[in-house]
Amino acid sequence: MSLADLLDRDAVGIAAVFAAGEASAGEIAEAAIARIAARNPVLNAFTDVTADRARARAAVLDAARAAGQDLPPLAAAPFAAKNLFDIAGLPTRAGSRINRDLPPAARDATLVERLEAAGGLLLGGLNMGEYAYDFTGENAHDGPSRNPHDPTRMTGGSSGGSGGAVAGGMAAIALGSDTNGSIRVPSSFCGTFGLKPTYGRLSRGHSFPFVGALDHVGPLARSVRDLAASYDVMQGPDAADPGCSARAPEPIGQGFEGGITGLRIARLGGWFARHQLPESDAALASACAALGVTAEAELPEAERARGAAFLITMAEAAEFHLPRLRERPGDFDPAVRDRLIAGALLPATWVQTAQRFRRWFADQVAELFRHHDVLLAPATPMSAPPLGTATVTLDGVEMPLRPNIGVYTQPISFIGLPVVAAPIWPPGARLPLAVQVIAPAWREDLALRVARVLEREGIARAPVAAFGA
Amino acid sequence: MSLADLLDRDAVGIAAVFAAGEASAGEIAEAAIARIAARNPVLNAFTDVTADRARARAAVLDAARAAGQDLPPLAAAPFAAKNLFDIAGLPTRAGSRINRDLPPAARDATLVERLEAAGGLLLGGLNMGEYAYDFTGENAHDGPSRNPHDPTRMTGGSSGGSGGAVAGGMAAIALGSDTNGSIRVPSSFCGTFGLKPTYGRLSRGHSFPFVGALDHVGPLARSVRDLAASYDVMQGPDAADPGCSARAPEPIGQGFEGGITGLRIARLGGWFARHQLPESDAALASACAALGVTAEAELPEAERARGAAFLITMAEAAEFHLPRLRERPGDFDPAVRDRLIAGALLPATWVQTAQRFRRWFADQVAELFRHHDVLLAPATPMSAPPLGTATVTLDGVEMPLRPNIGVYTQPISFIGLPVVAAPIWPPGARLPLAVQVIAPAWREDLALRVARVLEREGIARAPVAAFGA
Repeated sequence: MSLADLLDRDAVGIAAVFAAGEASAGEIAEAAIARIAARNPVLNAFTDVTADRARARAAVLDAARAAGQDLPPLAAAPFAAKNLFDIAGLPTRAGSRINRDLPPAARDATLVERLEAAGGLLLGGLNMGEYAYDFTGENAHDGPSRNPHDPTRMTGGSSGGSGGAVAGGMAAIALGSDTNGSIRVPSSFCGTFGLKPTYGRLSRGHSFPFVGALDHVGPLARSVRDLAASYDVMQGPDAADPGCSARAPEPIGQGFEGGITGLRIARLGGWFARHQLPESDAALASACAALGVTAEAELPEAERARGAAFLITMAEAAEFHLPRLRERPGDFDPAVRDRLIAGALLPATWVQTAQRFRRWFADQVAELFRHHDVLLAPATPMSAPPLGTATVTLDGVEMPLRPNIGVYTQPISFIGLPVVAAPIWPPGARLPLAVQVIAPAWREDLALRVARVLEREGIARAPVAAFGA
Repeated sequence: MSLADLLDRDAVGIAAVFAAGEASAGEIAEAAIARIAARNPVLNAFTDVTADRARARAAVLDAARAAGQDLPPLAAAPFAAKNLFDIAGLPTRAGSRINRDLPPAARDATLVERLEAAGGLLLGGLNMGEYAYDFTGENAHDGPSRNPHDPTRMTGGSSGGSGGAVAGGMAAIALGSDTNGSIRVPSSFCGTFGLKPTYGRLSRGHSFPFVGALDHVGPLARSVRDLAASYDVMQGPDAADPGCSARAPEPIGQGFEGGITGLRIARLGGWFARHQLPESDAALASACAALGVTAEAELPEAERARGAAFLITMAEAAEFHLPRLRERPGDFDPAVRDRLIAGALLPATWVQTAQRFRRWFADQVAELFRHHDVLLAPATPMSAPPLGTATVTLDGVEMPLRPNIGVYTQPISFIGLPVVAAPIWPPGARLPLAVQVIAPAWREDLALRVARVLEREGIARAPVAAFGA
């Protein structure tokens, strides 16, 4: 097995090879660094590479293995983090130009720290849409991250570099954040698995926020077991994130192998069966066929939920960025600045109405979950569009592309439900497109079990894109 | 003892007389009905009198006593409720003209039900400022409630009828609500004890809201033991109020007699030592002298807390009333309508900033309570002004009276702290003025203990106003 082949394995697989003595952590680190050097100039996923840190950490792991010590579960697995997570010594740019003037972070984000403590080799910070206010993966300052399956196409945003790093084989696991879809959209466009956990489940400590009421953080990876393994080591309370639940960790372990016998699974109809391009319909149909799902469920007022998610996003993001809008308006991506200014002009009553609706909607969805265990929906209405695409025609109406990438993700994150994005490759498809596997709050285990069945059946898969070398 | 003298006792005292067989519940009900008939034409505290219901309930209690059954703790004590609490069979007017067109309430508010279950005789619904957006106790539709100690003066709002009914001897206990001060202000102007519990402690189930994020409900009464007794029977979770805590009841029992030995009590300086007229300073000084309090504490950014409370109030109230503003603008009190329209025009970012400040402020105050057990502050900067007063001169500046009645109450309710308003009669004063006894969240017991010492020392007292007959 070549080191290049090794890097195409998933994190648990790489850790197993390392543990078996078939490769050293130092070799794995160098291979990853070399691959980033070769591919990143095209893919533009990494904005910072922490090569020396990865080497130093690898040396520690090699010494631990040589000394016969117990190895942590993700030992020697390369990982990276969207650049809104603090990495000690780097300014936390959060996709912006303005934040580059911040002092370097004094410490790591909680999740970076926990992944590294679990053996991960941190390779660097990843490209993202400015301040996470993005669905395309384009960035006015750093240039767009590019889709490993077709570098002329979008990665999806805002965790675009996270999708690109994982699908490009430069990291086995990438941390992302998801406010309205920012883990699920790049998972869909780049063909990776992604886990957006229940709101409050994983700590956002020492990361740069977008919308406190809606921000989630989680992993993108190339297998369901990697989602589960990284999720397990990242769980647990954290005083650094006031929104992080005090619940004790509930490890998945091998629970993702539990299968779907007895689970009541339905596909979402109504809003989630409109707007889509043929590839989106095909991806969901493949998943439903593999799972034997015929039932359909209706999420009431999903369109209104999406509108309410927009309003809360706009107002909260605008308020958070007001000082920067006042002091450095010229240093924003102009499109992001316009969104923030629009948010600053919203009447308070609209947002109050959205908040009130949100409580009603959560109650309705809780009722829906009395009759279903897991719900399926497309993650995006289309597969990755070419970079620079401005509009899309959905249901015969030409509309702005960017906001409509999130039509299916926003109503779900709006009330904090856990979702696994499972990348589907319908027969003959050149590009992937993910299905959202949606579970009730705090039931990540159910979503992972369903995604694992799709993976085991070969319907969902997250290969590293084929590159010349 | 005449029945009139009996009605001047507190609720626990009336219940004791009834239990001892010295008066029947029927006699007590008739006496209360007669007193309302005599005094309410002047005081205008009651907007609805439920005489038949009180009689029927009295008959049940008399039969229970005759049968030797155990009597509930507040048996035969007359009580009434601010007319935003549902009373079965009456439209819940909430001080408005518009709500009179609502169908009659199908059931009682949770707290009305619990007080009646504890033996209380419900005498009716009480006058209040329109939709609780008021500090004066005036009402454009029903006329002002009038202060029993001087009917040319304000009761204070918005629970003005509650203050008037208790100080006027027409009810031993009155339910009120307090969003920015609406229990504490009438307690101050009318000279009653009032308890604004911790946010979420007592159920608002089946009452008409003002600002969900800030609304509290609680009793006004003529003794600390009545506050404790009514609070005890009203505690407990209630699914009808999503904001009501799931905490099990924590009965005070006789705990209010615990004294203050060992308690670290301070008076609030800074913001709370400015603005006040001489009578406010004198009331607080009397209380501090009686308690031996010399320490002073500073609530940081109290002025900003008040501003933030205004913003949240304005936006949330406006959003809630938008349908009525659109459909029946001419049926509002014009002054309330103007406040609501102003709220509807607020930018969302201002309210977001207020919410963010609120979390910061709560943290600061939690820190303050590490060094103090109870904090004292005036409830109002002035005693009851004459009805119709439009301005007040505070610190040499003439300002609108209404909003400035709440300068001291708003920063406290803003973060949901429990407060007992204790009515002080400084030497020579013709009118009372309350002191706020402020405790950390969920520590109503501490506030009641301090208020009880003031009552035992004769500094705080809540006499029924002297009437001709």
